Amino acid sequence: MAASLSPIPRSIDLNADLGEYSTPGEGSSDRELLSIVTSANIACGAHAGNEAVMREVIAMAAANGVTVGAHPGYGDPNGFGRRELGIPAKRIRDEVALQIREMLEVCAAEGTRLRHVKPHGALYNRASVDAEAANAIAEAVHSVDPGLILVGLAGSELLRAGRNASLTVAGEAFADRAYLAEGTLAPRDIKGAVLDDPEKVADRALRMVLEAAVTSMGGATVRVDADTICVHGDSDRAVALARAVRKRLEANGIRIAPFAV
Amino acid sequence: MAASLSPIPRSIDLNADLGEYSTPGEGSSDRELLSIVTSANIACGAHAGNEAVMREVIAMAAANGVTVGAHPGYGDPNGFGRRELGIPAKRIRDEVALQIREMLEVCAAEGTRLRHVKPHGALYNRASVDAEAANAIAEAVHSVDPGLILVGLAGSELLRAGRNASLTVAGEAFADRAYLAEGTLAPRDIKGAVLDDPEKVADRALRMVLEAAVTSMGGATVRVDADTICVHGDSDRAVALARAVRKRLEANGIRIAPFAV
Amino acid sequence: MAASLSPIPRSIDLNADLGEYSTPGEGSSDRELLSIVTSANIACGAHAGNEAVMREVIAMAAANGVTVGAHPGYGDPNGFGRRELGIPAKRIRDEVALQIREMLEVCAAEGTRLRHVKPHGALYNRASVDAEAANAIAEAVHSVDPGLILVGLAGSELLRAGRNASLTVAGEAFADRAYLAEGTLAPRDIKGAVLDDPEKVADRALRMVLEAAVTSMGGATVRVDADTICVHGDSDRAVALARAVRKRLEANGIRIAPFAV
Amino acid sequence: MAASLSPIPRSIDLNADLGEYSTPGEGSSDRELLSIVTSANIACGAHAGNEAVMREVIAMAAANGVTVGAHPGYGDPNGFGRRELGIPAKRIRDEVALQIREMLEVCAAEGTRLRHVKPHGALYNRASVDAEAANAIAEAVHSVDPGLILVGLAGSELLRAGRNASLTVAGEAFADRAYLAEGTLAPRDIKGAVLDDPEKVADRALRMVLEAAVTSMGGATVRVDADTICVHGDSDRAVALARAVRKRLEANGIRIAPFAV
Repeated sequence: MAASLSPIPRSIDLNADLGEYSTPGEGSSDRELLSIVTSANIACGAHAGNEAVMREVIAMAAANGVTVGAHPGYGDPNGFGRRELGIPAKRIRDEVALQIREMLEVCAAEGTRLRHVKPHGALYNRASVDAEAANAIAEAVHSVDPGLILVGLAGSELLRAGRNASLTVAGEAFADRAYLAEGTLAPRDIKGAVLDDPEKVADRALRMVLEAAVTSMGGATVRVDADTICVHGDSDRAVALARAVRKRLEANGIRIAPFAV
Repeated sequence: MAASLSPIPRSIDLNADLGEYSTPGEGSSDRELLSIVTSANIACGAHAGNEAVMREVIAMAAANGVTVGAHPGYGDPNGFGRRELGIPAKRIRDEVALQIREMLEVCAAEGTRLRHVKPHGALYNRASVDAEAANAIAEAVHSVDPGLILVGLAGSELLRAGRNASLTVAGEAFADRAYLAEGTLAPRDIKGAVLDDPEKVADRALRMVLEAAVTSMGGATVRVDADTICVHGDSDRAVALARAVRKRLEANGIRIAPFAV
Repeated sequence: MAASLSPIPRSIDLNADLGEYSTPGEGSSDRELLSIVTSANIACGAHAGNEAVMREVIAMAAANGVTVGAHPGYGDPNGFGRRELGIPAKRIRDEVALQIREMLEVCAAEGTRLRHVKPHGALYNRASVDAEAANAIAEAVHSVDPGLILVGLAGSELLRAGRNASLTVAGEAFADRAYLAEGTLAPRDIKGAVLDDPEKVADRALRMVLEAAVTSMGGATVRVDADTICVHGDSDRAVALARAVRKRLEANGIRIAPFAV
Repeated sequence: MAASLSPIPRSIDLNADLGEYSTPGEGSSDRELLSIVTSANIACGAHAGNEAVMREVIAMAAANGVTVGAHPGYGDPNGFGRRELGIPAKRIRDEVALQIREMLEVCAAEGTRLRHVKPHGALYNRASVDAEAANAIAEAVHSVDPGLILVGLAGSELLRAGRNASLTVAGEAFADRAYLAEGTLAPRDIKGAVLDDPEKVADRALRMVLEAAVTSMGGATVRVDADTICVHGDSDRAVALARAVRKRLEANGIRIAPFAV
C-alpha cells in the first residue's frame, strides 16, 4: 500500500470508526456513514460497543459493500479509550489479540470477512510513537491472522512495526484534524485541533490525495502518504463532512474504493 | 468480624497498601511500615507493582509476621488505579479473579498463605456504592478461594456483597482521610480530604477504636465499625503517621493484631 | 425557602442548566427546555457559553417568563467544569464574583433581573461538602448582591454557608440522578448514576415533591427537602425527561412555579 | 539568543522549575538544585507554590547567583498544571500577566531582578503548537515588561510569537525527556518519555550542546537549537541528574552560565 502509492493516485479509501454506541438501533449516523465510506473500523466492546452492536454494524457494512475491520482500544469506556492508561506492552498484545478474536467470531457468525485492524484513541496515538507498543500490536495482529491489514497513522511507528512483522499496512490521514509541522496530529484538546467546516475539510482531503500534502497549524507544508482518509464518526457533523469529502474527491475524478481488495 | 464487633474492642488490625513500586529494593517505606502494621495489601501488577516486587514484599511481610492480602485494582498504571474506567461488572470479575490468582501463585512460591483481598482506588470506591461491581468482586474472591476475607469500607455495598456471597468480611476505617457526614470518605481531590498531622491522625484512630466514631468535615459525629484501620502507604509522611497511630493505640491498652487469625 | 418547606408543597420549581454551547442559534434543546422549566441557570463563559450565548438565552428565558440565574463554574472548558481543579477558596471567591458580575451586566443590557446563583459541576460538588469553598461562594454572592438566592444541593454545606451569610437559599434535588443512602449523588462515572427513562424519572420527581424522599441506589429511603428539581440540559433525552416530569407533577395537582417570587 | 547560537557554543544555561511546593522549608531538592543550575523558573501560585514559597526560592536563588524567572501555569493545582483546560487566548493573556506581576512584586520586595518567563506544563505544550495561545503569552510578557526574556521549546510557536512581539527569546531543550522524530517531546504518559539514568541524560545534554542534536525515540537525529537545558525539578532523581549533566558539560570544556546577562 504505502509502498505502492503513485504520485497522483486514481483511487483512495474512506474509513470511519463505527459501532461506538451501546444499544442496537441507536447508530443512526453509522447507517448514513456506511453509505459514504468504503471501510469501517468497528469497536470491539472495550472502549465502546458490544456484541449486539458489532453484529448490527457488520450486517449494515456488508449490505453496503463496506470492508470490515476491528477497532481495538483500551478497556476504558468512561474515557472512551482516549486516556493513556500506560499498561505494559505484554498486556497490550493480549488485549488486542483478544479483541480481534472477538470481532472475528462475530464476523464469522455474520458470514463477513474481517479485513483489517486499526487501533483506537490513546492506543493509536501511543502506537504512533512508542515502538514497543507498536510491536505488541503488530504481533497481536499477526498471531490472530497474518493476512489482516494493519492501519495506522501515515509515517508512524505502527506502520514500521507492521512491516517488520510482515503485515500489509495502510497509511491513514485525517482530513478533519489539524496537523503539526512534524506530521503528527495536533492534540485533540488544543483549540483548532478538530475542524468542522465541510468545505475546508473537503479541500484538505483533496490535497491529501492529489499532492500527498497538508498545511500544518503553523502554515508549513507537511507530506502525508495516505492509503485511506478517516472521516470521524464522533464529530457532530460527521455525516455532512463525509459527504462533502466524498463529493469533492469524486468531482475531481478520484475513485473511492476500499484499500483491501 | 463486623458482626462480632464489641462496643470497646481490645484489639484492632492496622493495614497498609504496599508493593506499589516498580523496582525491588525501592520500597524503603514499605520495609518500615511492615514493622508497624499487622496486615498488608499488596499490589498485583495492574495499577502498580510486578511479580518481583510482589515476591519481595511477601517475603518482608512474612519476616515481620504480617498477614498478606491481594490488592487488585484497575489496569491503569498511569492513573495509579485512581481513575474510574467504567468497565462492565463481568470484566471486573475476570480482572479481579486473575489478579488474585497471580498473587496466590507468588504466595505459594514464597510459602506464604494469602489471607484477604482488598480492592484498590477507584475500584474500591466504586464497590462501596455500586452493588453490581461489589457483587462481581465478591464472586471473584469466592471463585478463587471462599476462605479469603474480603476487606472493604465499613458500611459499604462491598461488605454487604461479601456477606451475601458467604465470605468473611472486615470493615475498614481511614484515620488519615476526612469523612463526610454520611460516613463516606471525602473525595481525595477536595482540600482537607487527606490529613497529615500525626497527632490528629492518632487521635482519630483512637476514637475509631474506643467509640466506633469519627468527626466529619462538617463537624458531625459519624459511626464507623472498623475491624482494621488503614495507614496509607502513599502519603509523604506515611511512616510517621503509622508510628503515631500504633503508639497512641498501644498507650491506651489496645492490642494491635491481624484481623485474620 | 428550605426553612419554609411545608410537608406537602402545592408548588415546586423546575430548573435547567442552559447556555452551555458556543454559537448562538445552536441551543435548540435550550429553547424547548425554556417552555418547560421555571428557572434557568445560565453558564457564564468559564466552563461553557459566552456573552453572545448568554444574551440569547436570557432573551429566550424572558420571553418564556423563566427566572434567570448565574451558573458559575471552574474555568475549564475542556473538562466542561467537571474536573476538580483544587484552586484555593480565595480564588473561588474572586472567580465566582467575577462570573456573577459578567452575567449581571448582560442581564442589565437585556433588561432582565438576575435572581439566583447556582454553581456548576465540580464546583457545585465541592461546595456541597467543603465548608471553606461553600463559604467562599456565599461571600461572592453576597458581595455582588445580597438579594440573590443561592441554590445548592438540599442538605449541603453550600446551603448552610448561604444561610450563615444571610442569603436566601433554595435546596435542589435531581430527579435523573441516583442517590446514595447518605443523601449525596452517586458519582457521575458510576454505572447507573444517570437515569434516562422518562417514566422512572417522573416517578422520582413526584415522590420528591409529595414525600420529600427518594430511593437510593442500594434501596434505602433518603430524605430530600427540595425547593427546585433539576432537569439536566446535557442528557441526550433532556427534553423528553423534562416534559415527563412536568406532566406527571401537574397531573398530580402540583403547581410548577419559580422559587424566586 | 537562538539567533546568535554559534555551531559549537562555549557556554550554556541550565534551568530548573522550582518553588512547586506548599510550605517554606520543604523544598530541600530546590536548595540543592540551586547550587547546580544557572537560572530558575519559579511557580507563581497557580499550578503550585505560594507567596511565602516564592519569597524563599527567590532568596535562595539570589544567594546562589541564579537568575530568576516566572513560571506561570494553569490555575489547576490538583492537576499540577498538566491538564489542558482549553481556556480562551484572552483569558490566558490575563492569567499570565497577573502571575508575572505577582512574581514581580515578590522580586521587588526581595530586591531581586526578574529576568525571564517560561510557561509551565500544559500551557507550555499548548503554546508550542497553538499560535493563538503563543501570541497571548508573548503579549502578556510584553505588557508587563518588554525586557523580560521569553523561554520556550526550541523551534516552537512560542519562540516565533516572542520574536514577533519583539521579545528576546531563549530556546529550551530537555536532556531527560524523549524526543519524537519531529522535534517535539514524547508525551509524558508514554512509557520511556522520561529518562532517569544520569549517565544517559548527561550524554544527551553534551550532544545537545556540542552538536545541537538529539536522538529520537525511534532512532532519528533531531536538530535542537538550545540556549538553555532544563533539568526537571520534579523527577525523583532530579539532583543526581542535574549534577551529572553539569559535571559532564564542564568536563568537556563547556561553561555553565545564565542566558540572561
